[in-house]
Amino acid sequence: MIFDEPPENQAETLIHDRIDSSLHFRTKIPVGILGATGSVGQRLIQLLDKHPWFELVYLAASDKTNGKTYKEAVNWQLPTPLPEKAGKLLLKPCEPGVDCKIIFSALPAAVAGDVEVAFAKAGYVVISMAKSHRMDPDVPIMIPEVNADHLELVSKQPYGKSKGMIIAKPNCAAIGLALALRPLILEFGVKAVHVVTMQALSGAGFPGVPSMQLLDNIIPYIEDEENRLENEPHKILGEYKNGAIIPYACTISSSCTRVPVTEGHLEVVSVQLAEKPSAEEVIRAWEEFYPPVQELKLPSSPVKPLYYFSQKDLPQPKLQRDLDNGMAVSIGRLRKCQILDYKFVTLSHNTIRGAAGGALLIAEYLVKKGHVFW
Amino acid sequence: MIFDEPPENQAETLIHDRIDSSLHFRTKIPVGILGATGSVGQRLIQLLDKHPWFELVYLAASDKTNGKTYKEAVNWQLPTPLPEKAGKLLLKPCEPGVDCKIIFSALPAAVAGDVEVAFAKAGYVVISMAKSHRMDPDVPIMIPEVNADHLELVSKQPYGKSKGMIIAKPNCAAIGLALALRPLILEFGVKAVHVVTMQALSGAGFPGVPSMQLLDNIIPYIEDEENRLENEPHKILGEYKNGAIIPYACTISSSCTRVPVTEGHLEVVSVQLAEKPSAEEVIRAWEEFYPPVQELKLPSSPVKPLYYFSQKDLPQPKLQRDLDNGMAVSIGRLRKCQILDYKFVTLSHNTIRGAAGGALLIAEYLVKKGHVFW
Amino acid sequence: MIFDEPPENQAETLIHDRIDSSLHFRTKIPVGILGATGSVGQRLIQLLDKHPWFELVYLAASDKTNGKTYKEAVNWQLPTPLPEKAGKLLLKPCEPGVDCKIIFSALPAAVAGDVEVAFAKAGYVVISMAKSHRMDPDVPIMIPEVNADHLELVSKQPYGKSKGMIIAKPNCAAIGLALALRPLILEFGVKAVHVVTMQALSGAGFPGVPSMQLLDNIIPYIEDEENRLENEPHKILGEYKNGAIIPYACTISSSCTRVPVTEGHLEVVSVQLAEKPSAEEVIRAWEEFYPPVQELKLPSSPVKPLYYFSQKDLPQPKLQRDLDNGMAVSIGRLRKCQILDYKFVTLSHNTIRGAAGGALLIAEYLVKKGHVFW
Amino acid sequence: MIFDEPPENQAETLIHDRIDSSLHFRTKIPVGILGATGSVGQRLIQLLDKHPWFELVYLAASDKTNGKTYKEAVNWQLPTPLPEKAGKLLLKPCEPGVDCKIIFSALPAAVAGDVEVAFAKAGYVVISMAKSHRMDPDVPIMIPEVNADHLELVSKQPYGKSKGMIIAKPNCAAIGLALALRPLILEFGVKAVHVVTMQALSGAGFPGVPSMQLLDNIIPYIEDEENRLENEPHKILGEYKNGAIIPYACTISSSCTRVPVTEGHLEVVSVQLAEKPSAEEVIRAWEEFYPPVQELKLPSSPVKPLYYFSQKDLPQPKLQRDLDNGMAVSIGRLRKCQILDYKFVTLSHNTIRGAAGGALLIAEYLVKKGHVFW
Repeated sequence: MIFDEPPENQAETLIHDRIDSSLHFRTKIPVGILGATGSVGQRLIQLLDKHPWFELVYLAASDKTNGKTYKEAVNWQLPTPLPEKAGKLLLKPCEPGVDCKIIFSALPAAVAGDVEVAFAKAGYVVISMAKSHRMDPDVPIMIPEVNADHLELVSKQPYGKSKGMIIAKPNCAAIGLALALRPLILEFGVKAVHVVTMQALSGAGFPGVPSMQLLDNIIPYIEDEENRLENEPHKILGEYKNGAIIPYACTISSSCTRVPVTEGHLEVVSVQLAEKPSAEEVIRAWEEFYPPVQELKLPSSPVKPLYYFSQKDLPQPKLQRDLDNGMAVSIGRLRKCQILDYKFVTLSHNTIRGAAGGALLIAEYLVKKGHVFW
Repeated sequence: MIFDEPPENQAETLIHDRIDSSLHFRTKIPVGILGATGSVGQRLIQLLDKHPWFELVYLAASDKTNGKTYKEAVNWQLPTPLPEKAGKLLLKPCEPGVDCKIIFSALPAAVAGDVEVAFAKAGYVVISMAKSHRMDPDVPIMIPEVNADHLELVSKQPYGKSKGMIIAKPNCAAIGLALALRPLILEFGVKAVHVVTMQALSGAGFPGVPSMQLLDNIIPYIEDEENRLENEPHKILGEYKNGAIIPYACTISSSCTRVPVTEGHLEVVSVQLAEKPSAEEVIRAWEEFYPPVQELKLPSSPVKPLYYFSQKDLPQPKLQRDLDNGMAVSIGRLRKCQILDYKFVTLSHNTIRGAAGGALLIAEYLVKKGHVFW
Repeated sequence: MIFDEPPENQAETLIHDRIDSSLHFRTKIPVGILGATGSVGQRLIQLLDKHPWFELVYLAASDKTNGKTYKEAVNWQLPTPLPEKAGKLLLKPCEPGVDCKIIFSALPAAVAGDVEVAFAKAGYVVISMAKSHRMDPDVPIMIPEVNADHLELVSKQPYGKSKGMIIAKPNCAAIGLALALRPLILEFGVKAVHVVTMQALSGAGFPGVPSMQLLDNIIPYIEDEENRLENEPHKILGEYKNGAIIPYACTISSSCTRVPVTEGHLEVVSVQLAEKPSAEEVIRAWEEFYPPVQELKLPSSPVKPLYYFSQKDLPQPKLQRDLDNGMAVSIGRLRKCQILDYKFVTLSHNTIRGAAGGALLIAEYLVKKGHVFW
Repeated sequence: MIFDEPPENQAETLIHDRIDSSLHFRTKIPVGILGATGSVGQRLIQLLDKHPWFELVYLAASDKTNGKTYKEAVNWQLPTPLPEKAGKLLLKPCEPGVDCKIIFSALPAAVAGDVEVAFAKAGYVVISMAKSHRMDPDVPIMIPEVNADHLELVSKQPYGKSKGMIIAKPNCAAIGLALALRPLILEFGVKAVHVVTMQALSGAGFPGVPSMQLLDNIIPYIEDEENRLENEPHKILGEYKNGAIIPYACTISSSCTRVPVTEGHLEVVSVQLAEKPSAEEVIRAWEEFYPPVQELKLPSSPVKPLYYFSQKDLPQPKLQRDLDNGMAVSIGRLRKCQILDYKFVTLSHNTIRGAAGGALLIAEYLVKKGHVFW
């Protein structure tokens, strides 16, 4: 338990009470978004529309948008219409003092660090999509299906008095990898991982990569991405023990490329395992992966976190990225690797599972577990 | 020497005589193309236009095109106009009996095998771009910069009496890989290779992949491609000894994907080396790679076979595929691999260096070395 | 009234009874698809999954697929998973004798003509997406929001005894155009239409256009498309009178191009009107367009058939094609035309509103109006 | 004659002397580029490499690049390598005082106006690719094949004393249109033009349109583009008389869209003609178009300015944009228009013919005609 009160089931009762009585004023949890006009901010607004638990009440972006309505400020780039209510919200400064409890931060890394701390100090639950605090020893990088217990780390944060906290979601390419590796770690142990990514352009934010550079082309380099992909998984997949994360010990080598695909990071992975399972056993490990968080039936949870496709040319970004509303990870092509043990392909939606949806799932988990009071 | 006569320098004299007196009738070497209407056939016709040594006199494709002019039969897909003279050639059956000496075969694998043998038996020099005979023990898979001596293997072919022969060019993805590996083998020895390819759609021929499947998508599977990429390099990079190729012993693991790029195969490679050179030494090995064939100044030779780019986001298909008329291989991003020794990126133009241009270079090498008489 | 019985409200009662008692066996209307494996067939299967009124019981495609399960036979290309129940259906011959009432025909035009007649003769309601019968004088080309009364034409068909009929949906590019023109015709009269289309590649079916031809390219020609776009609207927009359609008299000039967009036909339109309304009046005509069929609240009806966007760079295929589940038509950029009166841009989802969804809406209309008995 | 001296043939002699004696010091004409790092600047540097008459000696871009080598400052995006000599040039301020004669201005419109005037005042021949001065009454918008005599307008500019001048090249979309219309005007007269453009993304400069907005999409709006396309052609196609241009009187209606194509503007055009020629006569007018400038054999002139393609699905950006090194305009699909007289499709390379190459051709024409002294 992170905090002394309230007891978990009391919190759940509260939530359920409020949710059941959804016609009353302020039954939903008020939430806000920092960096609301960017591509991840837009995706969050899309996903929060009609969310059963959360109500969007606060939006902030760069200073020059202050005072505008969101509709005026944003260059909306999603295929569903800008939700009307969000469009009418006025953009405010990126400062605490707003009447909401959970803050989703999609700020650029350059400014995210300090702003997120300010909000945590002021008692907000900050779900950060920036890399700024990910490697801080007291900040968990959470994937609820993988490391829900890392949440305990929050008790080490200096914001306890105010009940504020910072929780990071992983790098968008690390999420699909970590989810695919998790069952292999649980069942067989993983000693080495070689990964080559083909990352969608939405991962570069907006405006991101000029179309002149990406149409009919591949860019075999993404600033700082290989560094993150080789470091974050150790922490994500590590073990929480005595108030700290013991990083998962395995070797990771990555190569990251940007490809002309709108959404969906495809990763070609080779792994060396501690035990030597058959291919059938590996596939079974994925198919039977059923982490405890699934039992909570969170609104943003996928039906299943992992799907294995036996059809030889799957997964493909266009065909599987939207699986379970973009929250499932698709795996395919498992076969022997001549150098390590097995190779396979994994795919995840980078702005949903890899960013906005992943952050939302963390928030839902926190609420369900009683760590958000309002 | 493969054949007793003519001595090499005599042949060269003949060629040079003829080339110098280029205004006379039939001074160029007459050549033909099987499978002329496909994407590789079209590329060959483009490259043969105004070729200083070769004159295109014979074209064949599927039966249903017989008797049509090439212009009528082809759905020309290249950005330079269909050469006028080629457009007027009548398509003939895929059978020997035509008045030319070198036959470029761009036939589908399903039919290439027998037709190529028929031409070789009839005394033609067949440069095959199909996979049919590549793994035959007496057929060299040639890259003149890598294994010019493999040509000796031809003496084992049963067509000696007629002076016919079959020579294969490698799989389009294997060419870039083998060229990048060759200097590493020469300098340091290579023990293991892990390669992930992102292959251009032109490699799938015409019509190839439906645009519905490839726009905004990646297909992580190419029929039989990984098999070829894991097998051909051993032979290509092997040593010719006593009438046979001793395959180069190293482990290769490959994953092949199809990406929405028109031309240019990008490959992300990790290698384990026998010796442990510094990164500078590896780069120097590539930059100083100057195989003997360069001395011959063949018309289709690149200025340099390999270029190393130190700019961190190169090579890119769109920017480097046309380097040295599409015949150079571009390399970049050399850095330590956490699992093997080094990782890097390599790029080659798949329908030029990887197919039509690669075949042309073989033919030029043969002519220069005196193995083509006309 | 087309048929003497049952009276419309009786039929409605029946439907509503069955729908309300949806837990009972066979309460849904059994339907089938001819040409089920193509891109429109796939889209229909997607849209029929969980349809409140229809149950898919019969699938047919080319002869070579007979006896296979749909899952085995299809190369599924949609971003949502193949519905499980449809995947298990066995493909049967394209022949009457199957136990269902409505037949959606997505057959290629070459074979659709006769097969559709055979089904109509056998008493099936055939909703045809092929062009074969569109210009037959007794076959309505229906868009329920535009010309619901054209259904009367069916009484002229020779299948009355068996209660069978053939109803066509328009060409995919004609649908967006006709819907955008309809309010202008009602309010102001239309004398001339100049339209340039930029059509998505899914409109070419599967495999359709090779990716080699369409990546980084535009093809300014679509076989027979301009002919259809210049002829069908006259009939679609015509008036039903005394058992025949009086074509709407206006001049149409079209130019059709294929663009590298997955879904969504964009059309740049100039119109000459009989009256001379202000731009505001034109926009109001679109925004207030509320055809009677909207009152029926059919399952596939869009919330509104037409949306006008005042943002200067809309509509865009990627942003608006999925509006109202792909059934709404988006319009934008209304401004004076220097040659005709006004110009504007219109967009519609070609495989939903323009094909499968448009056909489904017709079927729903027929059911609601009491013309389908089961 | 614009200037009193030197007489035209004297100038030609000078040029030819210098060109013939090309081994001597400073035989080439020194030229410079303003806005050298953008997409048009890059294209100019590519085209100037090995130019027979011009030598690049001066490059300028934004202030923040001053003092850097061009190689350091540019994000080179062209498929041929950055020319070595240009790469080593130091970027200097955008101010007169540099030792060259011709200045190509690829500056953004916001700053081009004043800077170009400063250079003209200082005696430089400024070829402007910006829109700033195009509609100035004393600045010709030149296409040498269309309106070479408009050069006379320069005598009205206030820079005569210094021999400086400003000459504009047209908007990139106007060039293809004006070239296609010119023979029709000469032969039949043109009364109305309806044009819908599908413009390549390179036309938006660099970085231009984010790939997120353009992959799998079309944007049916380009800022200020329709305004230019409806105004510039009148001046371009007008008649020079008594020191002024009499605009060509015809009605133009345009709709401009941005499409996911790297290079090549495709335009769908309908025209009303004063006379009523047959389709054969129209095609003949294009095919026989041989403007006097062709006689000058300028280095950048296409073999023919216009090509008509009878194949029904041409021209296509990918197949024809590079025709005659990107300087030819391709036309196809001539057929009757139901509203105006004829409709057709035209294509031109927007950054070569439509920008850098078009500017170069103007400069070459000026040199050949004796208006550049050095």
